[in-house]
Amino acid sequence: MTAYDPDNIFAKILRGEIPNHTVYEDDRTLAFLDIMPIVDGHALVIPRKPARNIFDVEPEELANLVKVAQKISLAACKAFDADGHTLRLHSEASGGQEVPHIHFHILPMRTGIPPRPRAMADHGVLAQHAKKIRDLLG
Amino acid sequence: MTAYDPDNIFAKILRGEIPNHTVYEDDRTLAFLDIMPIVDGHALVIPRKPARNIFDVEPEELANLVKVAQKISLAACKAFDADGHTLRLHSEASGGQEVPHIHFHILPMRTGIPPRPRAMADHGVLAQHAKKIRDLLG
Repeated sequence: MTAYDPDNIFAKILRGEIPNHTVYEDDRTLAFLDIMPIVDGHALVIPRKPARNIFDVEPEELANLVKVAQKISLAACKAFDADGHTLRLHSEASGGQEVPHIHFHILPMRTGIPPRPRAMADHGVLAQHAKKIRDLLG
Repeated sequence: MTAYDPDNIFAKILRGEIPNHTVYEDDRTLAFLDIMPIVDGHALVIPRKPARNIFDVEPEELANLVKVAQKISLAACKAFDADGHTLRLHSEASGGQEVPHIHFHILPMRTGIPPRPRAMADHGVLAQHAKKIRDLLG
C-alpha cells in the first residue's frame, strides 16, 4: 500500500493553497467541480481526512462520503436536467485514479449527450455551474 | 421517478428464482459475480431492500452498501492480484444502468490488463472465481 501523499493537489485544495469551484462543504467533506469536466456538472467529493483510495479509507468515512455524494448528485442532476447519473471511484493508476486523495466522480448524464473528452474548462463557466448546484443545496 | 420493477432480474435473484455465483451475503446485502465480466472478479453488490438507483435509495442503505462493496473489493483485488480498482454505480439508461435494481460494480483492475468487452462467461469459471473471493471473506 502506497502511503498518502500530503502534497497531492486535493490536499492543497483542502488547505486552501489552490482555489476550487466549491459546490458543497461541511466539517468532514468538500465537493467542487472537476476543472476538466466530461459532462456539465461533473463534480468531485472528497473527505477532509487524508485517505488515498478504497484500499485505505476507513469504512465509516467512505459511508459518509457516499451519502454526501448522493446529496450532491441529486442536486447536480436537477441543476443540469440530467435524467441519469454515474458515480465512480477510481483507485490507483490501473483503476483510473489521477489524484491520490480519495474522490467520487459525480456525473450527471443526459440522454443523447455522451461524455466529452477531458479538457480544461473556462473558469467563468465553472463558477456559474458551481453556483447552480450550490443554490439547489441551499 | 420511475417506480421500482419487482420483476427485474436482480429481484428474481434475491427471491432465489434465478441462480447466481454468490461471493458474499448478509441480512441486508447480496454480492455475486457479473455473468458478463469485463475483468476477472467483476462482482455486483445489491441491497435486499428494493431501490432502483441513486435517485431513490435511502442514504443509510447506500452507506451500508458501499461499506459492503469496499469489503468485497479488497477481497476481490487480493483474489485476482489486482493493484487497482474501479467502483461504479450507474443510474438510469443514460447513466449506463442495465438492471433497474441498484448495484455497485466492483472491478479489480490490473496494470497492463484493460477491461474486455462484455460477454457471457463460462459458469464453471465463474464458480471458481466466486469461490476464490468467498474463501478470502471467510
